[in-house]
Amino acid sequence: MIMSRIEAPRDEATGNLLDRLLAGLPAEAVLSDPDVTVSYANDMASFCEAGTPAVVVLPRTVEEVQHVMRIATELRVPVVPQGARTGLSGGANASDGCIVLSLIKMDRILEISPVDRIAVVEPGVINAALSRAVNEHGLYYPPDPSSWEMCTIGGNIGTASGGLCCVKYGVTAEYVLGLDVVLADGRLMHTGRRTAKGVAGYDLTRLFVGSEGSLGIVVRAVLALKPQPPQQLVLAAEFASASAACDAVCRIMEGGHAPSLLELMDRTTVKAVNDMANMGLPETTEALLLAGFDTSDPAADLAALGAVCEAAGAAQVVPADDLAESELLLQARRLSLTALEAVRGVTMIDDVCVPRSRLGDLIEGVERIAEKHQLTIGVVAHAGDGNTHPTVCFDAGDPDESRRARESFDEIMALGLELGGTITGEHGVGVLKKEWLAREIGPVGVEMQRAIKTAFDPLGILNPGKVF
Amino acid sequence: MIMSRIEAPRDEATGNLLDRLLAGLPAEAVLSDPDVTVSYANDMASFCEAGTPAVVVLPRTVEEVQHVMRIATELRVPVVPQGARTGLSGGANASDGCIVLSLIKMDRILEISPVDRIAVVEPGVINAALSRAVNEHGLYYPPDPSSWEMCTIGGNIGTASGGLCCVKYGVTAEYVLGLDVVLADGRLMHTGRRTAKGVAGYDLTRLFVGSEGSLGIVVRAVLALKPQPPQQLVLAAEFASASAACDAVCRIMEGGHAPSLLELMDRTTVKAVNDMANMGLPETTEALLLAGFDTSDPAADLAALGAVCEAAGAAQVVPADDLAESELLLQARRLSLTALEAVRGVTMIDDVCVPRSRLGDLIEGVERIAEKHQLTIGVVAHAGDGNTHPTVCFDAGDPDESRRARESFDEIMALGLELGGTITGEHGVGVLKKEWLAREIGPVGVEMQRAIKTAFDPLGILNPGKVF
Repeated sequence: MIMSRIEAPRDEATGNLLDRLLAGLPAEAVLSDPDVTVSYANDMASFCEAGTPAVVVLPRTVEEVQHVMRIATELRVPVVPQGARTGLSGGANASDGCIVLSLIKMDRILEISPVDRIAVVEPGVINAALSRAVNEHGLYYPPDPSSWEMCTIGGNIGTASGGLCCVKYGVTAEYVLGLDVVLADGRLMHTGRRTAKGVAGYDLTRLFVGSEGSLGIVVRAVLALKPQPPQQLVLAAEFASASAACDAVCRIMEGGHAPSLLELMDRTTVKAVNDMANMGLPETTEALLLAGFDTSDPAADLAALGAVCEAAGAAQVVPADDLAESELLLQARRLSLTALEAVRGVTMIDDVCVPRSRLGDLIEGVERIAEKHQLTIGVVAHAGDGNTHPTVCFDAGDPDESRRARESFDEIMALGLELGGTITGEHGVGVLKKEWLAREIGPVGVEMQRAIKTAFDPLGILNPGKVF
Repeated sequence: MIMSRIEAPRDEATGNLLDRLLAGLPAEAVLSDPDVTVSYANDMASFCEAGTPAVVVLPRTVEEVQHVMRIATELRVPVVPQGARTGLSGGANASDGCIVLSLIKMDRILEISPVDRIAVVEPGVINAALSRAVNEHGLYYPPDPSSWEMCTIGGNIGTASGGLCCVKYGVTAEYVLGLDVVLADGRLMHTGRRTAKGVAGYDLTRLFVGSEGSLGIVVRAVLALKPQPPQQLVLAAEFASASAACDAVCRIMEGGHAPSLLELMDRTTVKAVNDMANMGLPETTEALLLAGFDTSDPAADLAALGAVCEAAGAAQVVPADDLAESELLLQARRLSLTALEAVRGVTMIDDVCVPRSRLGDLIEGVERIAEKHQLTIGVVAHAGDGNTHPTVCFDAGDPDESRRARESFDEIMALGLELGGTITGEHGVGVLKKEWLAREIGPVGVEMQRAIKTAFDPLGILNPGKVF
């Protein structure tokens, strides 16, 4: 029965690896048919190399993960941990001959405590499933990456992912209180706590958040929850220039407003969304700002924010009357990436975050870069965070256009650093940006990060070739 | 002129150390008179050993700190970094023959940006000075340890300190975006960012927060700020039992309330404050809960919270009518530790944080421990966080009472762990609790923490004997 699952011709090393894995895993948790395993080779990033996995394992228990890591250590086989593979930097891409360690079967919500405002979950829990489950207890798990209906909490922890709500609620990192981690050699380590506060020793919890599976395998997480806020009401403000919209963002933040949403779409994005979905967005719009409040009086808060937009030169401010209208406005934002993909077939999504005071400079610079390379580059931004996603549209079948796309992508990162920003606000380094990490954090930073990597993974088997 | 400052007899090694330090520091930044240096030996913790420093240095620039660390590395001399020495775990205590590296002269606020909602500061800036400076820009730096009028931001970062506002705003760690750190060998490393988000590489910023000076010397910090909230209004609720008060805390948090203050004083503490300050607190009170809101309608929010207290059995709920009355109520809380000190002359302040659902069990357990050891132990708690400060009152001149005090202190930590809590919510491990760290984080956790320590400080010169 076991052999019937292993149909591909196997060399001796792979055969040995499979036999060893099967000694501690049920047969259905070990996939080695290349036609199957190939579908685990990539996440959703463009331009990122991926190798061919030797095997995909789908453990259901902590002990099974420990078994996999013990075998991997013993046989010196690289391990690539994966969630739903919705990442945008190649951080979950397979390397040749690796064990893909997919955590999607470890998908239980183990506990939800309204008094302690925590949830305890396995890594394969889908973000939306957790969100809905805690809602039933009057609680709220804020981090909401665009892929929230598909992505896993383990993947969110691996990439420290953000989303639309971060301007008010912050990113995943701020909601991870404690972790159970299987180390490279299979030992189990507990970090952090299930209390609201705690400072016993170094903060290893946060070290793992955003480490892209390169330090250990997260098998359980204690997450902080918030009380569920009132439902969000949204307004749209149209501007005749991107710089006026960015000026409005600065005025809003300087004025002490605390929106739960503050998103920006540039002209290119607005046009792409209009072309795709016929949403009736005015073609004259050079920039669209969406703002939301989830407060006890969102209409009043929106009115105050709308006045700031008008003072900054908004051509039109349209507050939603109700939740349905708010949802319609948000649809435009949610369609942005799909619409930009339709422009030339493929996109590269950058993730440059700048101090929000430099947001206007970034958008202006991206326009210059697009013009120089004769490319369409749309910018959608979590404007309140200064976190932009310049999205390069190109035809992957055209080598010259692909080259220009890659060049423009890099120039955008260079511009972000020049403006005091970071090469990645929420997508991570992965394969896509590892050449850039040293430019941001400098040689001493890289050396110390490598020292930490070596301390946790002396054999270099955990997600090799990522981050550094 | 230099020699006139070095009046103490010096052995050859110390002489060499001083000469080398003076080559890169102005004479007034190097103190070696034992009558002077002895005053830098301790922080504010009881029961913590402290050694005799060889020298105290007070650098004013990053370069001077780098110079000190280069010399320390070359001569293998331990370095103990210090802020205002208001810590409560001995984390800033000198070791024999060490260089005390006091950062208090690096006290400049370098930047405050209302648009980016950040401040850039040197480590010696006093917490209250920063708070007031950002207030002038309509901004708010939340972390407010009790020592906020004296303690430094560098010290707050070293201990990841908390305060009264954490129930709504979280601890210091959540406000540190980026750091400049001088490493053990004198090299300068930048961590983190000045943007709202960022995931480029491992989160070394958070690794340094709470590391008690054992990994490097923080010489600059980028701090996140919030918009200044409306002023806080407070209510006091009296309960006939501690367990009823704890039940009220659970109901408040479960009910989705978001107070900016939720503090508890037990009977012992209420009595001590009454005895000291004659504040008119009812002697029949078994527990006093203080709650505050800094929202747009604090009176309404207090009324709702007051109703929860009444439902939980509060004997009396007294909302303040105005800010002056709120301030009076808070005075009682602020006097707690001083009042408890007056009971027997000396106190040991524990810092056990439990899931707030276990708060009642902790307080009950502390009562049992006090009875068993025939000691007065008052509990003040950041109840909303489950973070308690059981405060053991004893006569340091009575060896048996001192022994019992130490034993009860340890039993409280054991109880905290048993209840799923941590040995330290906000004061840190220092010298006081290092025997306890392994019990909380386990042998694998300790091993990995030590590996990180070794990566950053291979010679073990940074604050030796602390944390581990």
